[in-house]
Amino acid sequence: MSHNTFGHMFRFTTWGESHGPSIGCVIDGTPPRIPLSEEDIQIWLDKRRPGQNNVTSLRKESDKVEILSGVLEEDGKKLTTGTPISLIVHNEDLKSKDYEEIKDKFRPGHADYTYLSKYKIRDISGGGRQSARETAMRVAAGAIARKILPEVSIKGALVQLGESKIDRNNWDWDNIDKNPFWSPDESVVNEWNKKIATLIKLGDSCGAVIEITAKNVPVGLGAPVYGKLDADLAGAIISINAVKGVEIGNGFEAASILGSENADEMRMKGKQTEFLSNNSGGILGGISSGQDIVVRFAVKPTSSIKKKKKTINKSNEDTEIQTKGRHDPCVGIRAVPVGEAMVACVLADHFLRNRAQNSDIG
Amino acid sequence: MSHNTFGHMFRFTTWGESHGPSIGCVIDGTPPRIPLSEEDIQIWLDKRRPGQNNVTSLRKESDKVEILSGVLEEDGKKLTTGTPISLIVHNEDLKSKDYEEIKDKFRPGHADYTYLSKYKIRDISGGGRQSARETAMRVAAGAIARKILPEVSIKGALVQLGESKIDRNNWDWDNIDKNPFWSPDESVVNEWNKKIATLIKLGDSCGAVIEITAKNVPVGLGAPVYGKLDADLAGAIISINAVKGVEIGNGFEAASILGSENADEMRMKGKQTEFLSNNSGGILGGISSGQDIVVRFAVKPTSSIKKKKKTINKSNEDTEIQTKGRHDPCVGIRAVPVGEAMVACVLADHFLRNRAQNSDIG
Amino acid sequence: MSHNTFGHMFRFTTWGESHGPSIGCVIDGTPPRIPLSEEDIQIWLDKRRPGQNNVTSLRKESDKVEILSGVLEEDGKKLTTGTPISLIVHNEDLKSKDYEEIKDKFRPGHADYTYLSKYKIRDISGGGRQSARETAMRVAAGAIARKILPEVSIKGALVQLGESKIDRNNWDWDNIDKNPFWSPDESVVNEWNKKIATLIKLGDSCGAVIEITAKNVPVGLGAPVYGKLDADLAGAIISINAVKGVEIGNGFEAASILGSENADEMRMKGKQTEFLSNNSGGILGGISSGQDIVVRFAVKPTSSIKKKKKTINKSNEDTEIQTKGRHDPCVGIRAVPVGEAMVACVLADHFLRNRAQNSDIG
Amino acid sequence: MSHNTFGHMFRFTTWGESHGPSIGCVIDGTPPRIPLSEEDIQIWLDKRRPGQNNVTSLRKESDKVEILSGVLEEDGKKLTTGTPISLIVHNEDLKSKDYEEIKDKFRPGHADYTYLSKYKIRDISGGGRQSARETAMRVAAGAIARKILPEVSIKGALVQLGESKIDRNNWDWDNIDKNPFWSPDESVVNEWNKKIATLIKLGDSCGAVIEITAKNVPVGLGAPVYGKLDADLAGAIISINAVKGVEIGNGFEAASILGSENADEMRMKGKQTEFLSNNSGGILGGISSGQDIVVRFAVKPTSSIKKKKKTINKSNEDTEIQTKGRHDPCVGIRAVPVGEAMVACVLADHFLRNRAQNSDIG
Repeated sequence: MSHNTFGHMFRFTTWGESHGPSIGCVIDGTPPRIPLSEEDIQIWLDKRRPGQNNVTSLRKESDKVEILSGVLEEDGKKLTTGTPISLIVHNEDLKSKDYEEIKDKFRPGHADYTYLSKYKIRDISGGGRQSARETAMRVAAGAIARKILPEVSIKGALVQLGESKIDRNNWDWDNIDKNPFWSPDESVVNEWNKKIATLIKLGDSCGAVIEITAKNVPVGLGAPVYGKLDADLAGAIISINAVKGVEIGNGFEAASILGSENADEMRMKGKQTEFLSNNSGGILGGISSGQDIVVRFAVKPTSSIKKKKKTINKSNEDTEIQTKGRHDPCVGIRAVPVGEAMVACVLADHFLRNRAQNSDIG
Repeated sequence: MSHNTFGHMFRFTTWGESHGPSIGCVIDGTPPRIPLSEEDIQIWLDKRRPGQNNVTSLRKESDKVEILSGVLEEDGKKLTTGTPISLIVHNEDLKSKDYEEIKDKFRPGHADYTYLSKYKIRDISGGGRQSARETAMRVAAGAIARKILPEVSIKGALVQLGESKIDRNNWDWDNIDKNPFWSPDESVVNEWNKKIATLIKLGDSCGAVIEITAKNVPVGLGAPVYGKLDADLAGAIISINAVKGVEIGNGFEAASILGSENADEMRMKGKQTEFLSNNSGGILGGISSGQDIVVRFAVKPTSSIKKKKKTINKSNEDTEIQTKGRHDPCVGIRAVPVGEAMVACVLADHFLRNRAQNSDIG
Repeated sequence: MSHNTFGHMFRFTTWGESHGPSIGCVIDGTPPRIPLSEEDIQIWLDKRRPGQNNVTSLRKESDKVEILSGVLEEDGKKLTTGTPISLIVHNEDLKSKDYEEIKDKFRPGHADYTYLSKYKIRDISGGGRQSARETAMRVAAGAIARKILPEVSIKGALVQLGESKIDRNNWDWDNIDKNPFWSPDESVVNEWNKKIATLIKLGDSCGAVIEITAKNVPVGLGAPVYGKLDADLAGAIISINAVKGVEIGNGFEAASILGSENADEMRMKGKQTEFLSNNSGGILGGISSGQDIVVRFAVKPTSSIKKKKKTINKSNEDTEIQTKGRHDPCVGIRAVPVGEAMVACVLADHFLRNRAQNSDIG
Repeated sequence: MSHNTFGHMFRFTTWGESHGPSIGCVIDGTPPRIPLSEEDIQIWLDKRRPGQNNVTSLRKESDKVEILSGVLEEDGKKLTTGTPISLIVHNEDLKSKDYEEIKDKFRPGHADYTYLSKYKIRDISGGGRQSARETAMRVAAGAIARKILPEVSIKGALVQLGESKIDRNNWDWDNIDKNPFWSPDESVVNEWNKKIATLIKLGDSCGAVIEITAKNVPVGLGAPVYGKLDADLAGAIISINAVKGVEIGNGFEAASILGSENADEMRMKGKQTEFLSNNSGGILGGISSGQDIVVRFAVKPTSSIKKKKKTINKSNEDTEIQTKGRHDPCVGIRAVPVGEAMVACVLADHFLRNRAQNSDIG
């Protein structure tokens, strides 16, 4: 129900504005006695952090996380206690003067207009609550979700930058962490670097497509109707800023092929069930099948661009706008760790929900 | 939390199996004194009903809905009372013998395997709880949701059957109700009829893409973070059986165009805000902008097909399967009214949620 | 959130009005493969059923329950499937003419005035949704909750009728089912029978105090802050019609004794923890301790009485009212099985919630 | 669902342990543009703050609240923005050495035993999450709830200390804030001061009964079945540490009087509805009637006492315990502002919920 809470049994509530003193979140439902230190969270925040290279925002944030509650040291080991885990990150690099231009004008493609229409008040500094800065706390929550499911590995990759797609034949998991785009295909990196440089020069932006894969997910997470695992994944992913589309498995392509081609056939491989393909993306009837879960999503190009655009102002007058400030030429790149985190949170939530209802079946 | 409940302030819970005595739902949160009779619901159920033509399932169901509670006659007018509205539809055309073949085998692409793995018990008749029959109750709930937002009009259309797409230049809203496919483009109907006939002959199936448009949605529905209107729409749509992808506005295409092309510019038109394009699909920052809301989704081809496929059985042995029974050659066609209903339910829910928080702002 | 849904992981939604065609409920979250037949529910409904003796309402209802979904027969045994269990009871003995008098007048002590003020529409027949008839569905849900916790036994007793209290020294568990009052003290039954006869003659009513005891509750149900087991029990109990107060353990008496007297001391008894008293009522810090859970609640006297009372009507005029119809002289008596059911539902819900968070601690 | 979140449309999540670096809460659902500064919250925290007099705990905490998000300054006025309000209070007076004694022993009447049984890990310092310190954040949330309902006034009073009750004939609202007990009856204050002095000397404690009155509550808050206003109030109140019983209106006394005496008769007073008594405590059928809402609750004597008591330790051995530390001789005194806050939160939540469903009825 709450507009700022995600999840059911594993749930978190985020708070904070882009240019307030800090942002944070409260995670509830974590099982007790799970080893958890600030470093466990920091490694994922560092992955998302802006200002690390020339392809993302220049805003410099150390994004240093502090655990304020929910963890106790016992015999030198930090363990969760089962009580709410409160996390805080202090904001540092606040250049509010960058936001003068947008004080009275609505940026096209941005939430300025709808937000003011709804709430009649708007924190213009850095987008306030709409800022992608909120996603840092999703990444933090995701770090804890991963601890609940240590055997599951969740990895995101950029598979399309603007109209340039990777060659899937070149997919190399090890390559993903070696370039600032999280591209699994090394051969596109040069071209993508040039593309970003051009966009920065032009004051323009581009979109991207991200693919998240979760391996070793247990069979049986999800539920047949409104608690479908894919329904919760889709909602989770589209709740990330600027996401305009989401697919499970082969997604929209499924519409174009025949039923006889699409259904994943099954065979026994020793005592294990084996699927001969994975068009389903690891989910059948809303329930995980044990195959890799594959979620793909499209991020629109950054709306805040330097190019001049037609708009209106708060006094209902026609005007034009050029957005200044330190914006990402492709906000989709930084969506990779955010997408991973949201997938982790959905899986952890469904793991606990499944355990509640189905843990002692004979 | 509940696996069988959808929504928050406007919420409904569905129950029932495909081949049980009946299916039903309970709708809670409806404002009082809204005119509502069984006919208001029946017209939408009739739209979804199988057995009406040669392009959908041959199962014959009259799908006659009864209101068991929540409506009171006052001066000859039936009005909602604000209490739960219980709806029931009796199942009629039960041919359980059709399901012998699948008793011990898992149909590829179907929930048989995951469902049995999770619950260790499975109602094989007609798919039990997984059956698309459950969607009748979504349509019923959607009929009531529409009554809460009488000024909003919600209309779905099939824009792709298999790999055949409509020509958007031929879009004619009036054409949609004139063909069994809900196609807005008359020129594809012949070809689609032939395609379906061929699929039936081959014992195969195809997928589809559906587009739902909601007009006259008030500005301000939704919320900036986890209560985003598009996040709830995406979750709602993917919770429909067989849906594998969902897009808002230009969706995945947004990834391929520049920020300067994608952002919808604004102008005043008299005293009204006018957007010069609708790439956003009527939602900015998770909040409705007053433009048409456009949601598109892909439905995979029906998994239950007559063609022989490799699979395993409950005893973990390799085997093959041919599914008999009266299945739709393209289950996506009947997803049109279901998609409309889910959009209606999300909008009604957010309308009430917005009224709770934001109704008296000075 | 929903006004007609109770519980979280084990949850149920009730619907129906006193004089509509039927009442029902949908139970969600039940683990699969639990043996469940209509008889398992009927025995508890029969306990609550009106018209069985001369101390409760004369309304005759067979209250025959039907299971419409969620149960499957496997090898001759009826088992839950993990999907929603839909229950229905048809209303039979509808004497709507009894309600003419209250059509335009508000019964003092009844919800007539507040309900019409809130909803601007009111089903006057039998109290509509306010009717104690709704509690039949609580009892039905409670029957299923008991099945989830087969080792727990939950038993209610009437410990006070009007101002007459039982003598706790005479407490005999076996006596409870032997008298229509559910009194554990045989010595008060004669007096109570006379009291009820007098009230019927006078057209008046009295209140009651009920005590529910749950034995063999596992240690660890509940949570330290807002998910306290006693907080959920208190909310559950006060949600029963006409309940005005609730206590856990020694309750209000705890305010009058010293800390040194109140705290339940502990000792080891072999390998078992033993408490030397049970002032806490089996709950410490919101979490079950393994002792008997003891909940006590006060039910006000039936508001619908034959005695003339001052009131106003819908036209805002002063008037007087005498309520006719078949009302219980002491509605508290029939609250015994309802209180048991609500305790069962809270325990089942917390059992599943605890299993989700805390089931694999090393 | 969440164990650390309270409410639905107006909801808050608290976090933090007694002896961690800080405690805090996140409040979601507050309507935008409500004037709110730290002072508005501080005045209520100051009322609850320990260390202010000789009748409550000697722990010294300044309990200085900071608002970290959700409030924006506009033209010199601080206003809510409709986004989550994050509050933090830093802990100061941490004397962890006081807790050595309880490291291995379970304090009778305390949550030590149940908490360790459930979570297998326990923060012994100051009770960790069980500490009454958590209630500071309830008071903070309550301060914001009051802002949502500015016309409603909510006032608590101590009506019983140990076995000593106030004389209701001496009730003087103005007296409540003039003594450290919040007694409305000046005549008991001397006696109560002596009682507390004696308890401190004896190392013992006593309980209390608190009464909260809410005036000017609008008619129509609440709902007929599980969303009853009194059910939510009862759950809210019993969720406060050490509360063992709760009553609405005349509460348990209702069980002892006749229906003809108990029902509150009605008359018109000009154009206003007037009730001739208020046995119902302002709630009929779960819905507010416009009369004063009256909630009364019993707080057990502080369990942490200096007197020696029998107990067991973590190694399952019999032992004895004397609790040291700075504990309140009567924790009920400081429950007065906490009870007020919880009543405020329930009313604000139901105010928003009612507005969602029922705000435009013709």
